[in-house]
Amino acid sequence: MSLSIKKKFKVFFKINTRWSDNDVYHHVNNVVYYSYFDTAVNNFLIEKKVLDITNGKIIGLVVETKCNYYHPVAFPDQLTVGFSVKKIGNSSVIYNLGILKKNKIVAEGHFVHVYVDRKNRKPTKINPKFRAILQEILV
Amino acid sequence: MSLSIKKKFKVFFKINTRWSDNDVYHHVNNVVYYSYFDTAVNNFLIEKKVLDITNGKIIGLVVETKCNYYHPVAFPDQLTVGFSVKKIGNSSVIYNLGILKKNKIVAEGHFVHVYVDRKNRKPTKINPKFRAILQEILV
Amino acid sequence: MSLSIKKKFKVFFKINTRWSDNDVYHHVNNVVYYSYFDTAVNNFLIEKKVLDITNGKIIGLVVETKCNYYHPVAFPDQLTVGFSVKKIGNSSVIYNLGILKKNKIVAEGHFVHVYVDRKNRKPTKINPKFRAILQEILV
Amino acid sequence: MSLSIKKKFKVFFKINTRWSDNDVYHHVNNVVYYSYFDTAVNNFLIEKKVLDITNGKIIGLVVETKCNYYHPVAFPDQLTVGFSVKKIGNSSVIYNLGILKKNKIVAEGHFVHVYVDRKNRKPTKINPKFRAILQEILV
Repeated sequence: MSLSIKKKFKVFFKINTRWSDNDVYHHVNNVVYYSYFDTAVNNFLIEKKVLDITNGKIIGLVVETKCNYYHPVAFPDQLTVGFSVKKIGNSSVIYNLGILKKNKIVAEGHFVHVYVDRKNRKPTKINPKFRAILQEILV
Repeated sequence: MSLSIKKKFKVFFKINTRWSDNDVYHHVNNVVYYSYFDTAVNNFLIEKKVLDITNGKIIGLVVETKCNYYHPVAFPDQLTVGFSVKKIGNSSVIYNLGILKKNKIVAEGHFVHVYVDRKNRKPTKINPKFRAILQEILV
Repeated sequence: MSLSIKKKFKVFFKINTRWSDNDVYHHVNNVVYYSYFDTAVNNFLIEKKVLDITNGKIIGLVVETKCNYYHPVAFPDQLTVGFSVKKIGNSSVIYNLGILKKNKIVAEGHFVHVYVDRKNRKPTKINPKFRAILQEILV
Repeated sequence: MSLSIKKKFKVFFKINTRWSDNDVYHHVNNVVYYSYFDTAVNNFLIEKKVLDITNGKIIGLVVETKCNYYHPVAFPDQLTVGFSVKKIGNSSVIYNLGILKKNKIVAEGHFVHVYVDRKNRKPTKINPKFRAILQEILV
């Protein structure tokens, strides 16, 4: 992986494309990239034990997403999601993400997670353990 | 529909939510909104006979998408996509879109379509018929 | 709608196809039909107030699905799901379903729902109110 | 992997589950299993160079699918699709498939592919090269 990619993104997660990712134009549909984003970041948070999607008191709601598409990819390509944290707020985090095919960035974007109480859905302060993990991948 | 919504969006398209639109948090997943966008705009272009996704010489590639999420919605809600054209370039168009539930905007975003030759995927000038249709919904 | 279709199916539910339903072969992918099935039956159960997917004590788990595909359909087709109940057991129900395009059956299948306690996921006896609703659409 | 699984299935393909695979009941939705089936078999046919989904003269249409669900799985589980060929006809093939989590079969099913001419969509005889590859994984 190139140095510039390693500087941009701190976590890398492999994505196997699926038959259903391709649309009629024979490439991965623009919508599907966001599904890769969701999968990579949530998988990381679950592994680090700061998010428990079934029983945890806090959940992460997405309030903004954006993506720019540079090069088409298609099933059965093997892809990688690279991501890092751009900004840590009181209760929200901006993640920067890229989709890579063979170390080339084919799409780039971000999403904003707000961490809220599962029941009342009000924003909650990111706790120290969570914050420490985010800081490790802050760029 | 409120006047402000009618000013913003010129075309309205009904979306029936689906079981699979909801994620574990019991609301429509952020990714799915983009699927509503794709569906509404392409349906419009097909109906107006300026896009033929199977046999046409030009196809529309998405090069940028963005969405902000204001209020959660969930299957089995009935939703509406409202959209208009924000900018018409030589070969690209910016569409502004909103997702409405009972005349309230629950999410808002845009996407950029570049119209290209199906075979060589090079940008092609938007033809007069297509341009006229886009101009009718320009805001 | 033909008499034979009305004999087969007791509930009809409109489906707007989506851009993402089409696969590279320019027709609705075989997988997506099951998403229509899920949507139609769950929508019915929610409307009849026998299923509350967020707060209800019982949920419906799918233990078997089958579908035969007769004729291709494609976005932006307007489709209809027709369905009826084939068999009501103690805690399980077999639904027969068809996908219709302009009153022609383009695909047909079934799925088996087992109604279980949300928490321990053990089968629960279908209650009289629920059973009465199912019996109305039994064929 | 157990001997009985190795007897049943001849090809194994890893699936990384995705955030969007889970539904409101916090497990992989019944529909998504078919997406794993599609992905595994088509990936195999593409790798073996008997299917070219973009330029090939023949394409595989799905005419029947079935699945039985034994145990729930959920994102972020790592899964495996195991499959083999059950029957080779003139132009159609029955594939038997299982979804495995840690060497336990959690779901099992089949699908029937008919190989047709891309243009006229009429069934075509499976050619000797293709047939040989199918025979290797016939059980």
